[in-house]
Amino acid sequence: MTPYAEMTKDEMKRELEELLVEYDKFQNLGLNLDMSRGKPCKEQLDLSMGMMDALYSGADMICEDGTDCRNYGGLTGIKEAKILIGDMMENNPDNIIIYGNSSLNVMYDTVSRAMTHGVMGSTPWCKLDHVKFLTPVPGYDRHFAISEYFGIEMIPVPMTPTGPDMDIVEKLVSEDDAIKGIWCVPKYSNPQGYSYSDETVRRFARLKPAARDFRIFWDNAYGIHHLYETPQDYLIEILAECKRAGNPDMVYKFASTSKITFPGSGIAALATSKNNLEDIEMQLRHQTIGHDKVNQLRHVRFFGDIHGMMLHMVKHADILRPKFEAVEQIFEENLAGLGIGTWTNPKGGYFISFDALEGCAKRIVEKARKAGVILTGAGATWPYGKDPYDSNIRIAPSYPPLEDLKTAARLFTVCVRYISIKKILENMDAA
Amino acid sequence: MTPYAEMTKDEMKRELEELLVEYDKFQNLGLNLDMSRGKPCKEQLDLSMGMMDALYSGADMICEDGTDCRNYGGLTGIKEAKILIGDMMENNPDNIIIYGNSSLNVMYDTVSRAMTHGVMGSTPWCKLDHVKFLTPVPGYDRHFAISEYFGIEMIPVPMTPTGPDMDIVEKLVSEDDAIKGIWCVPKYSNPQGYSYSDETVRRFARLKPAARDFRIFWDNAYGIHHLYETPQDYLIEILAECKRAGNPDMVYKFASTSKITFPGSGIAALATSKNNLEDIEMQLRHQTIGHDKVNQLRHVRFFGDIHGMMLHMVKHADILRPKFEAVEQIFEENLAGLGIGTWTNPKGGYFISFDALEGCAKRIVEKARKAGVILTGAGATWPYGKDPYDSNIRIAPSYPPLEDLKTAARLFTVCVRYISIKKILENMDAA
Repeated sequence: MTPYAEMTKDEMKRELEELLVEYDKFQNLGLNLDMSRGKPCKEQLDLSMGMMDALYSGADMICEDGTDCRNYGGLTGIKEAKILIGDMMENNPDNIIIYGNSSLNVMYDTVSRAMTHGVMGSTPWCKLDHVKFLTPVPGYDRHFAISEYFGIEMIPVPMTPTGPDMDIVEKLVSEDDAIKGIWCVPKYSNPQGYSYSDETVRRFARLKPAARDFRIFWDNAYGIHHLYETPQDYLIEILAECKRAGNPDMVYKFASTSKITFPGSGIAALATSKNNLEDIEMQLRHQTIGHDKVNQLRHVRFFGDIHGMMLHMVKHADILRPKFEAVEQIFEENLAGLGIGTWTNPKGGYFISFDALEGCAKRIVEKARKAGVILTGAGATWPYGKDPYDSNIRIAPSYPPLEDLKTAARLFTVCVRYISIKKILENMDAA
Repeated sequence: MTPYAEMTKDEMKRELEELLVEYDKFQNLGLNLDMSRGKPCKEQLDLSMGMMDALYSGADMICEDGTDCRNYGGLTGIKEAKILIGDMMENNPDNIIIYGNSSLNVMYDTVSRAMTHGVMGSTPWCKLDHVKFLTPVPGYDRHFAISEYFGIEMIPVPMTPTGPDMDIVEKLVSEDDAIKGIWCVPKYSNPQGYSYSDETVRRFARLKPAARDFRIFWDNAYGIHHLYETPQDYLIEILAECKRAGNPDMVYKFASTSKITFPGSGIAALATSKNNLEDIEMQLRHQTIGHDKVNQLRHVRFFGDIHGMMLHMVKHADILRPKFEAVEQIFEENLAGLGIGTWTNPKGGYFISFDALEGCAKRIVEKARKAGVILTGAGATWPYGKDPYDSNIRIAPSYPPLEDLKTAARLFTVCVRYISIKKILENMDAA
C-alpha cells in the first residue's frame, strides 16, 4: 500500500470517502464490543470450573500441617499454597505471603503501609514533602492510579523492547532520594507485551538508589501467561538477582492467579526478602487474622502442583492465541506500509500496544466508540491519563468472541486510517 | 461457702493446701487446651460444609443482574449478597459494601484510609499531631492493636451492663476535637456479652462531637449470635438512629459471616451512609477491582435468604449454649459466695468476662497455663495490654470440646481460688 504521507491531497480525499463508506457499514452493524480491559473471556473462565468441585461437603479440609483451613489463623498462607505459588513465581515458599483475591490490593496495601509506617524503619512517606515513583511509559493505568491516589509524583521513563531505559532509571534513582519506587510489569508488559532483557533485570538488581527505602514494585502479572509453546519470553528471577547483587531487600514482587483461575476469586501473593517479610508481617498481624485459606486449599487441590498449573495455562493459550493472531493479521493487512501506526506482536500477556500518529489516539478511540467498540481510553497508559503525544492505544483482545474481535479489529483499522488522513490533511492545511 | 475475706488465716492456709492438691491433680492430666480466642469449634465448622456444594462445576455462576461472578468487577459486591447481608445487619442493601473475608481488615482499612486521606474531606489524620480514640474497657484487643499500630492514643471509658458510660463519652467527644473515634462491640460485647441499651444507642446517635470527622466504629460482630431462642438481647439499629438524630454520617458499622460460616472464608461488610460510601468508594476504586464474588454467591446460594441464615444460627447456638452453661455452672458451684470474683452470664456472643480480685489476673492466667490451659492473656482486654487493676480475664468457651471445657473451667476456678487466697494472705502480711 502507498504510505499516506506519499499520497496527494486528492488521493487522500478519495481514501477518506471510501473509509467513511466502510465506517458507516460498521456503524450499521450496531456493535457493542468491549476491548477496554484485560478480562478473560467466558471460555477461559470455564476452564477452571473444575475448581468448584475441588472442595465439597465431604472433602478433607485439613492442611498438610494439620491446620483446619476453615478456621481462623494462618496469617501468611497455608504451606501447600506457598509451595504452589512459589513454583509459579520461581521463589522459595518461605519468601512468600499469600493474600486475598487481588494482587492490585496487595500493591495498594504495600504503598499504603509505606505511607503510614515507612519501609523497614524509614520515615513514613506521608511525613515527607515529596515522594516520587518512576513509571515506565506506556504502562499500567491501575499502577498510576495508586500513585496518584497517595499524592506520589510520577516521573515517566520511556519503555523499550528490552524494558525501561535503564540509563535514565539508574541516573534518577541514584540522584534523587525522593524517588521511592518504580512500577514494573517485567514480563509480557502491560501494554506492549515486552519482556525485560537479562541485562535490564541485572541492571535493576544493581541499582544504587539514593533512598534506602527505594523499592522496585515488580508486578509479574503475566509470568506464566505465554501464548506459544515456543517461542516464549524468559525473565531472570529478580529476588535471586537482587540477593546476588547485594541488594536483597530492594524488591517487592507481586503475582496472582487472577488470569489463571478466576479474576475475582483467585489468590494473590507477594514474594520478597526475609527482612521485608518481617516488616510486612508486623502490619499484617494488625490487619487480619488471615486470608481465605479455603480458597488457597481449593487452588492447591485443583492444580495438584505447578505441572498441573502449566498444563492449565496451555488451555488458556489455545483460547487467547487465535485472538492475538487475528488482531495482528488484520492490522498487518490493513495498516502495514501506510506509515500511520506501529504495533507490538507479543508472545504472551494480555495486550497489544498500538502507537498511532501523534495527536490521533483520542480521536481514534472516540471514532471506534461511536461505532460501538469500547477501547481503553487514550491516555490511560500514561500517568494522570495524559499521553503527551496522544499516540498510544492499548488493545485488549481477550474478552470478545473471536468473530466479534475480528470485526472490532477491522473497525479499528478503519478508524486509524480515517483519523490519520484527517490529521495529515489538517497538518497540510496548517503548514 | 464462707467468703474468703471472712476466713481466719489458718482456715485460709488449710484451703490453700487443699487447693494445691487439687491443682496437682489437674497438672497430672497433662492438659493442652486453648480457651484464648473466640474460635468456633470443629462441630460449628461442620455446620457449613454444605456451602462447599453450593457451587460446583455445573453450577450457574451468573448473578441475578447478569454479572458473571467469576470475572473482574463488582466493586462493592453482588446485589444478592448485599440483600442477604443487609437483612443480617438490618440495613438497606444500598448502604452496604461487601468486602473480603475479614471485618477486622475492613476496620484496619477504614482507619488506614482516614490516616492517609481523612474522612469526607477532613485533614488526613497522619498530618495531625494528636489522634485519639475512646475505648470502652474491658474491650477487644484487636481493636486496640489497630489503634496502637497507627499511633492513635486510646482513652479508656468504663463499660457498664448497658454499654459504655455515656456521661463520659458525651463529655470527652464534645470537648476534644482530637478524639476521632470510638470502638464499640454493641451487642453481646467482647468480652462481657453485654448489649447496649436503647438509651445508650440513642445517646450515641445524638453525640455532638467536636471533630467533624469523628466516627463511631460499630463492630456488630455478634448481631445474630444468640445462645437462646428466648431471652435474646435486642439492639437498636444505629444507622437509622443516627439519621433520625441528624447525624447520618457519624457511624461505620461492621459485620461478617466469620462466625456464621467459616472464620477464614466468610464475607465481611461495612454499612454506612451514602456520603461515607461515596468517600470510601473513591478509595476502593484504587484498591481493588472487586472482592471475591464467587464466595459471595456461594454464601447466598447456601443460605437462600436471611431465614436460612437464622435457622443456621440456631444450630450454632445448640453447640455453644451447653458450653457457656457448663462454664457458668462450674463458676457458680466453685466460686459463688467466696467474694473473689464476678463473671457475666451472656445471652449470646463468644465470651464470658471474669473479674478477679485486683492484682490477681496475671497470676491466675499463668497458673492455668502451667497446668496446660491457655487463657486470653491478662491485660489483653485493655489498651496497650495494661489492665490497671490486673483483674479482668476473658473466657472463650467455644473452641474446646465440652468435656475438656468443663475440666478447664474447673481448673480455672481452682486457680482463681488459689491465687486469691495467696493474694489475701499477702495483703494481710503487708498490712
